[in-house]
Amino acid sequence: MKGAVVTLSGGVGGGKLVLGLSYVVAGKKLVVACNTGDDFTHLGLLVCPDIDSVLYALSGLSDQTRGWGRKDETWTFMSAMKDLQGPEWFNLGDGDLATHVLRTDMLAKGKTLGNVTGELVQRFGIKSDILPMSDDPVATIIHTDTGDLAFQHYFVRDQCRPRVTGFSFKGINGAHPQPRIIDVLQSDPEAIILAPSNPYISIDPILRLKGMKTALKNAGAPIVAVSPIIGGKAIKGPAAKIMQELGNDVSVLSIAAHYQDLIDGLVIDIQDAELAPQIRKMGIKTLVVKTVMTDLNSRIELAQATLDFARDCGS
Amino acid sequence: MKGAVVTLSGGVGGGKLVLGLSYVVAGKKLVVACNTGDDFTHLGLLVCPDIDSVLYALSGLSDQTRGWGRKDETWTFMSAMKDLQGPEWFNLGDGDLATHVLRTDMLAKGKTLGNVTGELVQRFGIKSDILPMSDDPVATIIHTDTGDLAFQHYFVRDQCRPRVTGFSFKGINGAHPQPRIIDVLQSDPEAIILAPSNPYISIDPILRLKGMKTALKNAGAPIVAVSPIIGGKAIKGPAAKIMQELGNDVSVLSIAAHYQDLIDGLVIDIQDAELAPQIRKMGIKTLVVKTVMTDLNSRIELAQATLDFARDCGS
Repeated sequence: MKGAVVTLSGGVGGGKLVLGLSYVVAGKKLVVACNTGDDFTHLGLLVCPDIDSVLYALSGLSDQTRGWGRKDETWTFMSAMKDLQGPEWFNLGDGDLATHVLRTDMLAKGKTLGNVTGELVQRFGIKSDILPMSDDPVATIIHTDTGDLAFQHYFVRDQCRPRVTGFSFKGINGAHPQPRIIDVLQSDPEAIILAPSNPYISIDPILRLKGMKTALKNAGAPIVAVSPIIGGKAIKGPAAKIMQELGNDVSVLSIAAHYQDLIDGLVIDIQDAELAPQIRKMGIKTLVVKTVMTDLNSRIELAQATLDFARDCGS
Repeated sequence: MKGAVVTLSGGVGGGKLVLGLSYVVAGKKLVVACNTGDDFTHLGLLVCPDIDSVLYALSGLSDQTRGWGRKDETWTFMSAMKDLQGPEWFNLGDGDLATHVLRTDMLAKGKTLGNVTGELVQRFGIKSDILPMSDDPVATIIHTDTGDLAFQHYFVRDQCRPRVTGFSFKGINGAHPQPRIIDVLQSDPEAIILAPSNPYISIDPILRLKGMKTALKNAGAPIVAVSPIIGGKAIKGPAAKIMQELGNDVSVLSIAAHYQDLIDGLVIDIQDAELAPQIRKMGIKTLVVKTVMTDLNSRIELAQATLDFARDCGS
């Protein structure tokens, strides 16, 4: 679709901005490429945490208090699984299970992850276009001082405690971007937005897909990122801890440096206003606004501001 | 195990007697061969309704009011599945799902249904030996005046409304009894009991497995059945309706005739006392007791009476 707004997103944090964008970008003009490096098969079911976070955000099902999963969730399955001495470390809500069971069944019947995600988008009544970054499996591996860990083992089971030394993405060399993403990037998109997701484990897997960076650069659209780091902290998740462990300053400057070869503009929070000149010196345009998204209004405001900024960057 | 009590059982009705038997037959001496003709794959999950009914009965998890499934169940999965326009006709409780997901995952990892059932028995803390009738898939097909129906379509989706004309068991010719059942039958069992389950759709699939009837007859143990028909009615399920549709009298006499070539004795209810002489004329010993199992005590009493009767039949 011509004039699309292509957004690269991880899960919960990205989902907040994507929800805002869905209010300011009509229908299928909003194309979201979700990280699938966190996906894993648990108890025989394919769980796609980032896709699901975005699906739940856009269908109004996200739990706002817990910060992940579905609202009005129950946990009888987990309780029964515990009684059966099954794995307990990854929580699967009873309602959430419907998504995993339906997806796994559709995949077993031969559909691609892109097809299945499109089907779920429609069934959840979502108007935007949500896509997996790839139909090919990619698995994020976290290198830590206690050895390599599958992403969910690091993130959920070990609660991000191990000290991170690096990342690899199993399968990335054979993984192609989901074809629709490339189609949209070749159809004169209006803007490309990197959501405020973890750069290392949510956005990098997308960027490292075969031909993705080239497709983004050749799209002819302004590329802007929203910083996931605010005042030296991450709103959620291990981004700040990881930056520190990798020896980087926990700062928007590190985010700017990380994306320097790709982005035209960076949206930073007013708490980081004094760093804007340094970012501009790196050749990156900078928008300073309130980026903490506490409610629906702030999501929509940040989405609109980011989109307007991208248009400015492109003009 | 020498001296075992081997019980052939369907689901809910059979499970009641099996629960009673578990109080009067110690530990692994009670060997239950469960019908698997009702098993089916739903949303990619293997559901074994009869095995599960027996597992839930013996672990104290059966819901007594609803009459099937687990007590203290929740239905969030079904509600979410309905919202996703997934299949609604077969109810999967949230706690029940743990059994299906764990079983399906274990089978996908290469275990047999016998292994998996043994593992579940242990995890549910059940002392008796519960086995699938076979590790090979068998699917009960109901022939009706509106065409052939997969068992669960007849039983659950169509609520037994179609008029039954006959049965077939897909895969039965290639299906062998679960090896442990044959082992136990060859190890001098004390008694063989046919639970008060539907003869056509719960017990017949077991009896029609390759070599099963011969193994039962050669076991050298008395074989007794408990009639599922009481006073011309079935306590639960479509047995009476099916008997009528097949042109049989809905009576313990039809049950006696159905099992005539196999059983030494038949347990019938006091409501059917006047039919006992006719059954005895068929060469089948008869025990007349209260067979309606309304509570745990009545389950245990019927189990003890049936076992004592089997011993009498064998002496």
